Amino acid sequence: MFRPDRTLVLLTDFGTADPYVAEVKGAVLSVVPDVRIVDGTHEVPPQDVRTGAFWLARLVPAFPVGTMFLAVVDPGVGTLRRPALLEVPGHCLVGPDNGILSWVAAAHPPAAWRLLDRPDLVRAPVSRTFHGRDLFGPVAAALASGRVAPGDCGPTLPDPVVIPFPPASVAPGCARGEVLAVDRFGNLIVGIPADTLGPFPEGMPVAVRIGAGRGHAAAWGPYGAGTTLSVHEDSSGWVEVAVRGASASRVLRATAGSKVTLRW
Amino acid sequence: MFRPDRTLVLLTDFGTADPYVAEVKGAVLSVVPDVRIVDGTHEVPPQDVRTGAFWLARLVPAFPVGTMFLAVVDPGVGTLRRPALLEVPGHCLVGPDNGILSWVAAAHPPAAWRLLDRPDLVRAPVSRTFHGRDLFGPVAAALASGRVAPGDCGPTLPDPVVIPFPPASVAPGCARGEVLAVDRFGNLIVGIPADTLGPFPEGMPVAVRIGAGRGHAAAWGPYGAGTTLSVHEDSSGWVEVAVRGASASRVLRATAGSKVTLRW
Amino acid sequence: MFRPDRTLVLLTDFGTADPYVAEVKGAVLSVVPDVRIVDGTHEVPPQDVRTGAFWLARLVPAFPVGTMFLAVVDPGVGTLRRPALLEVPGHCLVGPDNGILSWVAAAHPPAAWRLLDRPDLVRAPVSRTFHGRDLFGPVAAALASGRVAPGDCGPTLPDPVVIPFPPASVAPGCARGEVLAVDRFGNLIVGIPADTLGPFPEGMPVAVRIGAGRGHAAAWGPYGAGTTLSVHEDSSGWVEVAVRGASASRVLRATAGSKVTLRW
Repeated sequence: MFRPDRTLVLLTDFGTADPYVAEVKGAVLSVVPDVRIVDGTHEVPPQDVRTGAFWLARLVPAFPVGTMFLAVVDPGVGTLRRPALLEVPGHCLVGPDNGILSWVAAAHPPAAWRLLDRPDLVRAPVSRTFHGRDLFGPVAAALASGRVAPGDCGPTLPDPVVIPFPPASVAPGCARGEVLAVDRFGNLIVGIPADTLGPFPEGMPVAVRIGAGRGHAAAWGPYGAGTTLSVHEDSSGWVEVAVRGASASRVLRATAGSKVTLRW
Repeated sequence: MFRPDRTLVLLTDFGTADPYVAEVKGAVLSVVPDVRIVDGTHEVPPQDVRTGAFWLARLVPAFPVGTMFLAVVDPGVGTLRRPALLEVPGHCLVGPDNGILSWVAAAHPPAAWRLLDRPDLVRAPVSRTFHGRDLFGPVAAALASGRVAPGDCGPTLPDPVVIPFPPASVAPGCARGEVLAVDRFGNLIVGIPADTLGPFPEGMPVAVRIGAGRGHAAAWGPYGAGTTLSVHEDSSGWVEVAVRGASASRVLRATAGSKVTLRW
Repeated sequence: MFRPDRTLVLLTDFGTADPYVAEVKGAVLSVVPDVRIVDGTHEVPPQDVRTGAFWLARLVPAFPVGTMFLAVVDPGVGTLRRPALLEVPGHCLVGPDNGILSWVAAAHPPAAWRLLDRPDLVRAPVSRTFHGRDLFGPVAAALASGRVAPGDCGPTLPDPVVIPFPPASVAPGCARGEVLAVDRFGNLIVGIPADTLGPFPEGMPVAVRIGAGRGHAAAWGPYGAGTTLSVHEDSSGWVEVAVRGASASRVLRATAGSKVTLRW
């Protein structure tokens, strides 16, 4: 059961140049004056639901049990796409039913989905293009404050939209996966769980190939000496490819979606 | 009468790369330890008072009655430009008297203007280039906490600087206005109140012309199918020109200030 | 003695596109649910410890006594670089021992350094690449809440890493220094304390030379008329070179680290 602690984390693709994020916060504070609002990130690439799903799945376990989440990357706003609520152990989330919540559901089972249907809680009239402010914000505020329970927000949603997680394969001497995200430092976060590899001795040579390109020499361990590429477990359990003081993304010409092969 | 709820919204052109915004927050917290500070936006284009005025007018009604606002886009800092206070029903705002508050005044009458004159409340010595931290921040904190009432902040300001709102015209089959802002998604927010048009049937063809350019085919409604341009009411009542999954600004080569003609 | 007021300021080079900053906040809130978290800035250029040290030294005096600081620009994470705690009058800071705290120590003596050694306070297991979340965040939370005192966080650190402050020289008619930072407006903040110059009459001609380049005409005072370069005291006591409505950095082709000579 979700016991809210009055903390609400926002994840959107709104950016921070426009006042849209602040409008969502105003809508939240209009419902509950004393909820603590935390910015997850607002710089999910515009309308990139998959990246939003990935960062959200990473954020949820970083927060204490009782934290509420609002996730809005919503290219389908104004169409018939449904508004959704997801409850996983310790946490509750709302957002469009376009898959943005689906990687949280997969990572933190059991997942209980609902179709958000509480017209009494929204900011009327609901605009056709800004459900973050008019629908998800007020409902998330009511949930974060405990004024409303997840189970009272609508009927079960039997068929939520799910984004397939990119496949990974691990065999002796070889692993394959896909770049899930490139961070500000140019580190490649690769969709291979690090604990399916090794354990490897620090410094072990690894060859990194992007797509059908040539292999690049790398070493296992957290950042190599000099400009050597390194492959290691990132801070949330994925394989990461990095280079100290430079951008692995630029060095390897890899971006989100690139196929990665590791050989050792 | 302004009954503050200890919430203070900041809108500036300071950006977030430098620690200037945080210095303002430090100045606020030095006066009132428990005011809730909300970032409106800090990415108003540098010294672009008109864009600041527009986003501010949009933000004010998004917050509950009792919210205090600080708006600093201040190319004239260090000159004789005056510091101002504006009270509108439910809200109080401070900022330089350069027009940044003037669109709020126009949108939410009646407006009561004062010349800020409370040297006892500022952070001494007031620097010549950072009134956001030294003057507006501390005064806004005192107002947000209720320690000081708007009416005690200085004499009436009879001649505040006002930025003229760009003209719009609507006639049968044709409307003209100006792009007020381009948001992160490349949507054009046009200074034509949507409720002066239509009602139009969804999908009705509209031609959009930028300046003296050629007409582009668009449809009325929230985002067209495929790459069709759409014209619709945005989430705060203006006409918006958008294209799903792409930037209308780029497609139409339009920016803030561009003249827009709609024909139907 | 540090008397925490439950405010924690974060300064990092994490940027805000990724959710790393939010993960730090989640780690903090997991320890202390009601600490007030303020973003100092997260846009220190990646791994640029010197710029981090400069902005941090500027931020500390902007906050009330009792504020806790966490500073993470940490190119050496995962190596043997030590975690540090610094106590200066009224404030406490934690961060890597790579010099990022050293300009605060120099500016606000006396400084007491400690080697952070409280494995009981960290988020286990500590990742090798994200000490902001796993080590500094939880410890800073415990310190900001008063649950732990600085003196109980580890032994004295006798040899903290110190970044040398770039030299400045002032003689009659001539001053030399280095650009410490370029802000969003393109203003050059120069490492010459303004109070070692003048007092100068407003409008006094000053020649500004970058490196071995030619001299540019400027005037003393806060922003000149028209496009004249101005030289003045910035809002925290440094010499600043600016031009109204444009970027002095672009006009003079100067960046952080550029040598500046002023002649008058």
